Order: sequence, then C-alpha cells, then structure tokens
Amino acid sequence: MLYLVEMIVQIPHTLDPALVAKIKQKEKEYSQKLQREGKWRHIWRVVGEYANVSVFDVASNDELHALLSALPLFPYMQISVKPLANHPSSIVQE
Amino acid sequence: MLYLVEMIVQIPHTLDPALVAKIKQKEKEYSQKLQREGKWRHIWRVVGEYANVSVFDVASNDELHALLSALPLFPYMQISVKPLANHPSSIVQE
Amino acid sequence: MLYLVEMIVQIPHTLDPALVAKIKQKEKEYSQKLQREGKWRHIWRVVGEYANVSVFDVASNDELHALLSALPLFPYMQISVKPLANHPSSIVQE
Amino acid sequence: MLYLVEMIVQIPHTLDPALVAKIKQKEKEYSQKLQREGKWRHIWRVVGEYANVSVFDVASNDELHALLSALPLFPYMQISVKPLANHPSSIVQE
Amino acid sequence: MLYLVEMIVQIPHTLDPALVAKIKQKEKEYSQKLQREGKWRHIWRVVGEYANVSVFDVASNDELHALLSALPLFPYMQISVKPLANHPSSIVQE
Amino acid sequence: MLYLVEMIVQIPHTLDPALVAKIKQKEKEYSQKLQREGKWRHIWRVVGEYANVSVFDVASNDELHALLSALPLFPYMQISVKPLANHPSSIVQE
Amino acid sequence: MLYLVEMIVQIPHTLDPALVAKIKQKEKEYSQKLQREGKWRHIWRVVGEYANVSVFDVASNDELHALLSALPLFPYMQISVKPLANHPSSIVQE
Amino acid sequence: MLYLVEMIVQIPHTLDPALVAKIKQKEKEYSQKLQREGKWRHIWRVVGEYANVSVFDVASNDELHALLSALPLFPYMQISVKPLANHPSSIVQE
Amino acid sequence: MLYLVEMIVQIPHTLDPALVAKIKQKEKEYSQKLQREGKWRHIWRVVGEYANVSVFDVASNDELHALLSALPLFPYMQISVKPLANHPSSIVQE
Amino acid sequence: MLYLVEMIVQIPHTLDPALVAKIKQKEKEYSQKLQREGKWRHIWRVVGEYANVSVFDVASNDELHALLSALPLFPYMQISVKPLANHPSSIVQE
Repeated sequence: MLYLVEMIVQIPHTLDPALVAKIKQKEKEYSQKLQREGKWRHIWRVVGEYANVSVFDVASNDELHALLSALPLFPYMQISVKPLANHPSSIVQE
Repeated sequence: MLYLVEMIVQIPHTLDPALVAKIKQKEKEYSQKLQREGKWRHIWRVVGEYANVSVFDVASNDELHALLSALPLFPYMQISVKPLANHPSSIVQE
Repeated sequence: MLYLVEMIVQIPHTLDPALVAKIKQKEKEYSQKLQREGKWRHIWRVVGEYANVSVFDVASNDELHALLSALPLFPYMQISVKPLANHPSSIVQE
Repeated sequence: MLYLVEMIVQIPHTLDPALVAKIKQKEKEYSQKLQREGKWRHIWRVVGEYANVSVFDVASNDELHALLSALPLFPYMQISVKPLANHPSSIVQE
Repeated sequence: MLYLVEMIVQIPHTLDPALVAKIKQKEKEYSQKLQREGKWRHIWRVVGEYANVSVFDVASNDELHALLSALPLFPYMQISVKPLANHPSSIVQE
Repeated sequence: MLYLVEMIVQIPHTLDPALVAKIKQKEKEYSQKLQREGKWRHIWRVVGEYANVSVFDVASNDELHALLSALPLFPYMQISVKPLANHPSSIVQE
Repeated sequence: MLYLVEMIVQIPHTLDPALVAKIKQKEKEYSQKLQREGKWRHIWRVVGEYANVSVFDVASNDELHALLSALPLFPYMQISVKPLANHPSSIVQE
Repeated sequence: MLYLVEMIVQIPHTLDPALVAKIKQKEKEYSQKLQREGKWRHIWRVVGEYANVSVFDVASNDELHALLSALPLFPYMQISVKPLANHPSSIVQE
Repeated sequence: MLYLVEMIVQIPHTLDPALVAKIKQKEKEYSQKLQREGKWRHIWRVVGEYANVSVFDVASNDELHALLSALPLFPYMQISVKPLANHPSSIVQE
Repeated sequence: MLYLVEMIVQIPHTLDPALVAKIKQKEKEYSQKLQREGKWRHIWRVVGEYANVSVFDVASNDELHALLSALPLFPYMQISVKPLANHPSSIVQE
C-alpha cells in the first residue's frame, strides 16, 4: 500500500552541530535500511529546498506512523502524508 | 531528469458527456503511451480525489511542458510541477 | 484501518432539482449500506455547513478510494482524507 | 453533544526533557481519565504528525473549554474545534 | 450557549431577480423571528461586504444546525461557526 | 460605533512566570474597567484556544486603537479588527 | 475618520456589454461625486489588476457601508476594509 | 525600470473558439511588438501551466499598467506585479 | 510615482529595550524627514496592529528600495509593496 | 535550461554579526562567480524585501540543486523554484 510523504527539515540553528551531524548520520542509515527492506520505495530531493518527496510501501497506517515517528529527524520535520491508490490508467499494478 | 507532477481534474458540469467520455479515452491512451516510453514513470490516484500524483522522466523543462500541454484533459486540469534531484540518502541513482 | 474523511458538498445551482433529489436519495441509501457493513463507521454533520466529517474503516487505500469515488454525490464534492493510526493514549485499540 | 477537536503539539526544543516527560505522563493520565468518563470519546493519531484527531462528548461549550484548557500540554498545542450535529443519513443517533 | 456565526452571501447572478427578492424577504422575516425568540442574539453587517457577523444563543449544536440550515439564503451562503465560552475576564455571565 | 475584535494571545515560553502573572492581572483589571465603561461591550472565550472574540463600542478608529494598544498583553497578541454596521434585518439599533 | 478600502472588480463574462458600459459610467459619476464631497479621498489603480486602492474619509462605520453598498459595481466587487488611525510619526493629523 | 509580472490565463470554456483563436493571435502580435520595442524584456512559459513569467522594462508604473491593461487576454488573466531593483551582488546594472 | 507600502513590525522580545527605544526614535526622525521631503506621502496606523499603511512618492523602484532598506526598523519588519497607477475615475492626477 | 528562483533571506537575530558579515561576503563572491559563468543569469532585488528574484541557466535539476544548496546563505533562506520553458510568443529562443 503506497503513500506519498513529503518531509521538510527545519533544524533549529541553536542545536549543537556535533549532535546535528550524529542525527543526520543515523537518519541516513535508518532511511537506507528501510529502502533496502522495500518499505521506503523512493526518496527524492526537492530542488532548492531542505526537503524530500518520498513514496512508502507499507502494510497499514499504523506501520507507516511507526516508521515515520522513529525517524531520527522526526522532531525537526514537518511531514505530510497522502494515501495513494492504483490509477486506472496505470500500466502497472503498484 | 525527474519531476513530481500533481494534476487535479475539474471538468465543467455543462460539458457534453459524450465529449467528456471521448476526451477521457484519449487521455488514457496518451498516458499509457508515455508510460510505455518510460517518460511518465509513475501515476497514482490520490485517495478520495479526482486527481493524480505522477513522476515524469524527461530530458528537459521544454519536453515536460510539451508533454503536459498535449494532455487531452489539459484545459480542464490544474497542474503543479516540482523538479526533483537525486537524494544523498537514496540507495539508487534515479 | 481508519481514515478521517471530510466531505464538502457543492451542487451547481443549475442542476435539475429532480435529478438532485434522486442523487441525494441514492447517496443516503449508499451511505447507510456502508454504515451497516461497518465500513463507514461514523458520519456527522458540520454545524452550519453542507458538509460532513466521517470515519471510514477499510482494508486498504484502494478500497477507500473505490468506496468514495462510487458516492452518488462524488462529482459534486470536495473530499479530503487523513490516514489515522492508533494513539498511544487511547484506552481502546481502534 | 459532539465536537471534532484537532490538536497539534509543538513543544519548544529548549524545554527541559525531564519536564517534558512529566507533562506527557500527566497528559496521558488526564486523557485516559476523560476517555473512561466517556467525555473524550475517540482519540486517533494523525499519521506522520505529532498531532491527534479527537471527538469529545460534553454538555456545553463551557465544559469543552474547561476540559481542553486543563490539558497539561495545552500551552504547547494548537487546537481547532468544530461543533458536530447528527447527520440525517446516520443510522445511529450520536 | 453562544456561537459566533459569520455568513457570507453569494447569490448567483443568473438567479431570477423576483425569486431573489422573495428569498431575501423570507430571510428577513425568519431572522427577525429568531431574534425576537432570543436565539439570534446579535446580527451586524460587515462594513463593505454582503456578509454578517452574528451571535446565536441555543441549547445545542443540533439546534444551531437546524436553525442555520433552515435559512432561506442557506444554499447561497458560506457559513463558519465558532463555539464560544464564558471569558474569565467578563463582568457578566453570558 | 461597533467593531468585532479577535485577539489571539501568544506569550513566549521564555518570559518570567511572575511577570506573566502580573501582566495577566493588569489585563483583567483593564478589560473590566473598559467593560464597566461600556466600551468593551462583549468578551467571549473561543473554545479550545487562548483567544477571545470581543465587540467594542467606541467613538472613532483612533479611540479604538488607543484602547487596544494600551492592553497590557498587546505586545503578545495578534489582533484583527472588523468594522461593523447596523444590519437591515436587525430588530434593534446597535 | 479614515479607512483603507481595496476593491477587486469581477464582472461575469456573460453580462450584457451594454449593461456593463452603463454600470461603469454610473460608477465613475458616483465615484467622482464622492471625491468632490471629500468622502472618497484617494483612488489609485493597482498596476496590472482590475482593482483599486482607496482611502475614504467618513463620519462612521455606518456611513462607510452605506457609501460602499451603493456603488453601482458593488454586486461585482470583492471589497476589504481596514480602519486607519493617526500614526504617531505622521507630521500631519489626518 | 524592471518589474516581474506573472500572468495566469483562464479563458471561460463557454467562449466561442473562433473568438478565442482571434484574441490569442492578437495577443501574440501585441506581445512580440512590445518585445521588439524592448519593453517586454523576457517571457517564459511556466512548465505545466497556462501561465507565463515575464520581465517588463518601462518608464513608470502608469506605463506598465497601460501596457498590461491593453493585453487582448487581459479580461481573462490574473496578473501579479513585483517591482524589481538592482541587486548589490549583480555584475550588471539592469 | 506612487506605491502602497504596508509594514508590519515584529521586534524580537529578547532585544535590549534601550536599543529598541533608540531604533524607534531614529525610525521616527527618518520617517518625518522623508515626509517633509514629500517622498513618504502618507503614513497611517492600522487599527489594533503594530503596523502601518503608507504611500510613497518616488522617482523609481530603485529609489523606493533604497529608502525602505534604510529604515532603522527594516530588519524587524515585514514589508509588502504594490505599485499604483493613476485611476481613470480619479478627479486629480496623483 | 531556465528556472525562476525566488530566495527570501531570514537570518536569525541571535547570529554573531561578524559571522553574518563573512557569510554575506562569501555569498556575494559565490553569486558573482556563477553569474560570470553564465549559470546565474539574472538576479534582482524585490523592492522592500530582503529577497531576490533570479533566473538560473543549468544543465539539469541536479545541477541546480547542487548550486543552490552550496549558497553560503542556504541555511538561512527560503527558496522556491519554478521550471521555465520557451514561450511560443517569445521572439528569442532562451
């Protein structure tokens, strides 16, 4: 089941740079683990913004919230979620 | 080169139903042709809306506008475009 | 799996009143059928508006879109959907 | 009498973590007490957000404000309230 | 129980002027009846707009919706409702 | 001459609590003085928000600004003002 | 007493051109009469828009609404009003 | 003197196609005349929209409004204007 | 050449009050100097807000930006600018 | 390939002025280098704002993001990007 997820990152300028670097490193590892598991199907950078557009493939709303709220950058992100359905014109079932 | 494209369809209620059916049929064929060519990489339905979220893969801004403005439903759609870039956390180059 | 669905009804004033009455009657029957099946769990009127707030309980995003796009009033409604998850403070699992 | 209440939590990053943990614990207890009393009828997590969608069942506007403004997280939340009425298509009176 | 109600009137230009005059006459009578009953406590014109700001005093959300949806101009108005509570600084209980 | 005034209070979390308590006490006294003088005709709490909806009765725009900008909480409030006129359907002249 | 008034004109394309020309002629005469009386103190065109920014000088909110609602183009305009007060840095009292 | 001008075209679907074609032809000729005169310095298509982003170089606000309001498509466009100034980092004076 | 300029002042609460007082004093002197020179033609207070509506009369976009960016409060203001043109109904040329 | 890029600068007031001056100096040098290379084709100041409107000419979305995210002021800017295409009425190919 697919969801379009848009994440805007807003890290406060007063946060310790070493801590920020550590959080970003964990975020990258976590994101790549989910990508390898096939749950975080796509992640693209929005040109000119510290933001991404992603597509998640999960079994339920609950699973999606569990994955997103465990993001190391979760406390510093504004996230919006759109549930997706198969489109009648699509040549694939995804 | 990838772009996130969101299309909201708003067909006036006064349009002839036969004409509408014909336009929708052409739209489907046109969309599937572009999907088979690999230019319209993804198309998903937004749940609850007469709208889609799509990803296009084209060579230039000009090519994208040419493709979108040739959509049979173009006069009846509100389209927004976000250019996408490779994300440093992505495990694939896309 | 639960979703908050908000529907705003906007019927064009030029539509034939007899047709409108028929669509509304079908809408009511369709809504009550889904309520009895447990898929349309709640429907409330928003005070002062021709709109409702609803909670749907379905197996997937695709099922939700199928149900909503089959609403007799679908062509005349603006619908927004928020996927819901279990809240850690909730005393029930719903 | 029912109300749809949406709460978005925004805790300043500079707040003492021990204090935050204590407030959240009190919030949970307070919420569960109101749920057991039947006044906080539903609470759901909005997927991807530190936010909830709730339904309250109270005797008056004044009672609702008293309950909401006593939330331990009240100073850190943005709350919006929509009064609800019985919907003519509903198969239950709620 | 008090509610702030804001009504914006938008009558389609294609409506028959005689019909419009009749609806407006009924609206006035209906409004004055509710004012005399003490349910429509205040009605003011918003300067420069075909709109009003009103205060209603009713027993429940359901009663308020019943009163508003019976307004002769209801199909041509955009209405927003804010539930009000007693303010701790108010020198009267209202 | 009447004005609808909406005030949203946003006190920074870093302000000294003793100072805040003092400002709120002064605000209450100031508000009640203006109410007794008939200039601050109504004040209601917006349910669920640290905000109020008020009606002022003053001789001029200048007087209204003088009263509002002297509010002890003025530096911490977002205020919006709508001038009101007599409504042709009103059964009173106010 | 001064007010900033912004008017956006939106004449439906289906209105009879002769009628439109007549309304515009009346609008101009009415506007110039109020300007000569000193009540419509300034009127400027917003560059690129069928809109104006105006300053009115009237005795009361009621007078302003009476003047604006009598505009021949009133049914086809979206008007917003901001009450103005003397600015402490102004070198004139206006 | 430069201005950023954004134009969104919204032609009503009920307009006669022959008339529309004629207006568009005149629009093109008018635009190209102004471009050759150096007054309409740039015109670009916004990808995916029936809209353009333009830069005008004129002697005054009045001249800009005269040019824009004479556009054959002016009655069918939503136009927004931003005055531009020389940027201190620019390597040219324009 | 005239421009409508709206300025909203937002001074951070953490700024030193003595510094704030000094900046405001300079702002007043600067504003009055420009008013005496005829460049800052009008300045009005927006009722209930720490904001003003102004009209500037300058020779060019560049001059306007130079004047505005030199405002002592410039770093603490949100400014929006609308270029104005002569209105065909105006009885004066301004 | 052209893009309209709008940048709004928001430097926190708590940042060290010496650091800010250094960042701005680097920003200017970086901007002028890109202008000389023909990649940052235009940069204009938005009148009255600490913001610019720019046109970039780059080979791809990825190149544009690389250039923008390397801006010394990037962490303190809000950037929006619109892809541009050749306009059929343009007398030049750009």
